[in-house]
Amino acid sequence: MSTEKLELLYEGKAKRIYKTDEPDILLVSYKDSATAFNGVKKEEITGKGRLNNEITTILFEKLTANNIDNHFVKRLSETEQLVKKVTIIPLEVVVRNVVAGSLSKRIGIEEGVILKQPLVEFYYKDDELGDPLITEDHIELLEVATKEQVETLKTLAKKVNEVLKAHFLTCNIQLIDFKLEFGVTSEGKIILADEVSPDTCRLWDTTTNEKFDKDVFRRNMGSLTEAYEEILTRLGGQSTCTK
Amino acid sequence: MSTEKLELLYEGKAKRIYKTDEPDILLVSYKDSATAFNGVKKEEITGKGRLNNEITTILFEKLTANNIDNHFVKRLSETEQLVKKVTIIPLEVVVRNVVAGSLSKRIGIEEGVILKQPLVEFYYKDDELGDPLITEDHIELLEVATKEQVETLKTLAKKVNEVLKAHFLTCNIQLIDFKLEFGVTSEGKIILADEVSPDTCRLWDTTTNEKFDKDVFRRNMGSLTEAYEEILTRLGGQSTCTK
Ligand SMILES: Nc1ncnc2c1ncn2[C@@H]1O[C@H](COP(=O)(O)OP(=O)(O)O)[C@@H](O)[C@H]1O
Ligand SMILES: Nc1ncnc2c1ncn2[C@@H]1O[C@H](COP(=O)(O)OP(=O)(O)O)[C@@H](O)[C@H]1O
Ligand SMILES: [Mg+2]
Ligand SMILES: [Mg+2]
Repeated sequence: MSTEKLELLYEGKAKRIYKTDEPDILLVSYKDSATAFNGVKKEEITGKGRLNNEITTILFEKLTANNIDNHFVKRLSETEQLVKKVTIIPLEVVVRNVVAGSLSKRIGIEEGVILKQPLVEFYYKDDELGDPLITEDHIELLEVATKEQVETLKTLAKKVNEVLKAHFLTCNIQLIDFKLEFGVTSEGKIILADEVSPDTCRLWDTTTNEKFDKDVFRRNMGSLTEAYEEILTRLGGQSTCTK
Repeated sequence: MSTEKLELLYEGKAKRIYKTDEPDILLVSYKDSATAFNGVKKEEITGKGRLNNEITTILFEKLTANNIDNHFVKRLSETEQLVKKVTIIPLEVVVRNVVAGSLSKRIGIEEGVILKQPLVEFYYKDDELGDPLITEDHIELLEVATKEQVETLKTLAKKVNEVLKAHFLTCNIQLIDFKLEFGVTSEGKIILADEVSPDTCRLWDTTTNEKFDKDVFRRNMGSLTEAYEEILTRLGGQSTCTK
């Protein structure tokens, strides 16, 4: 009756993906590893897996409630969840509301500048190449997605942004930017996959601009688990801001 | 009667730009400096200024003959030419017919692979930022060109490509890729500016793939002036292929 965990399919930097006895369902196990700069900075941080599994669960459920198709099926345990199996499109779809990180370095606009409208960028998901920024013409040339699919990705990414931005705001958190991965289901539909967590989002306190995301780790700004715990609490993991 | 060379307006890596007694006309003086990797590799190469001035002259005249508006007015001397003054749009517009250089590194496709269709890329012309690749959304956000202007740049760049590619082919040279700069005239028109030379193009022999461009300098593959001299000769600077 209940889904069984079978062999390890893939071990990434943050998660392990297992087969299950249902062909279209995978089991995702969140690891305690923190990595940055394409794996150059690395640390084991007890509790990180649980936090990302729980936060991702809350956020995917929020997206489902807002009719955004995604791979999430259910949370199984502190660090595990079931998801629909997809063929991942090898693009990191980044949405930005405020200038930060690599965008600031690339175009020379200082971190914190609010964008007039959300910006969508595509990075080629390839560790060996260092996940480079690519243009829509590069995507076409690489044949990783059709023009039509790129339009769908942009539309979906902006929708996700609207839902998440509004929700985080009710928790006094600014959604600065985030990275999404999409995949194609066995029926050929593009849905949101992977994770949405403080590993993949920049999340700043609305009043103080305090950072509660992986930049705490990247930039050695204190305890990563305390920051992620704060996000979980504010998202209603156990506190007042439940919806 | 003849245009007078007045004060130095700007000294770049490859050229000096002087005012003249005509407000809309500038004098460009081609230097013997070779630079690469954003100025990190540097050398004085006697004859380079003359070669680029002559090759650019031939190519701009070719473009003019094909109704592509550009800044070229006339060659004045071995290393000098007069051009229309424009406000340069700070974009390096790159057109590629074959994978090479930074594209190969970015997307992991090997140098020499022929593209199904010409690829246009935009780099933000900013030495401090290292001339980064940017997307059309970045261009909009930076407000360096409007969406309409970006379309014009793409159309013009592809036209330039068609003319130059065909012309180089008659000289047994493959036009692999090249970088253009455009500017806005006092009447608000976008025209091609700067230079078109072996400094700004990749030019390979059709049969042997021998390189006759700045990669000879970047990659220490022999004499730069011999390579540029070969291009000048093939373009009819003194040889058979006059058209
Ligand atoms: N629903 C899904 N189906 C198949 N693969 C998925 C799904 N969701 C995420 N993945 C992939 O599983 C891997 C997740 O592990 P992660 O540790 O984040 O990997 P990485 O180091 O590549 O970022 C990624 O390659 C991701 O694209
Ligand atoms: N017609 C023109 N009007 C005004 N500026 C021009 C024109 N053509 C080229 N330029 C600018 O003059 C400078 C040429 O010098 P160069 O040595 O190539 O500079 P850089 O080191 O910036 O590449 C560049 O900044 C270029 O954009
Ligand atoms: Mg990942
Ligand atoms: Mg230049």
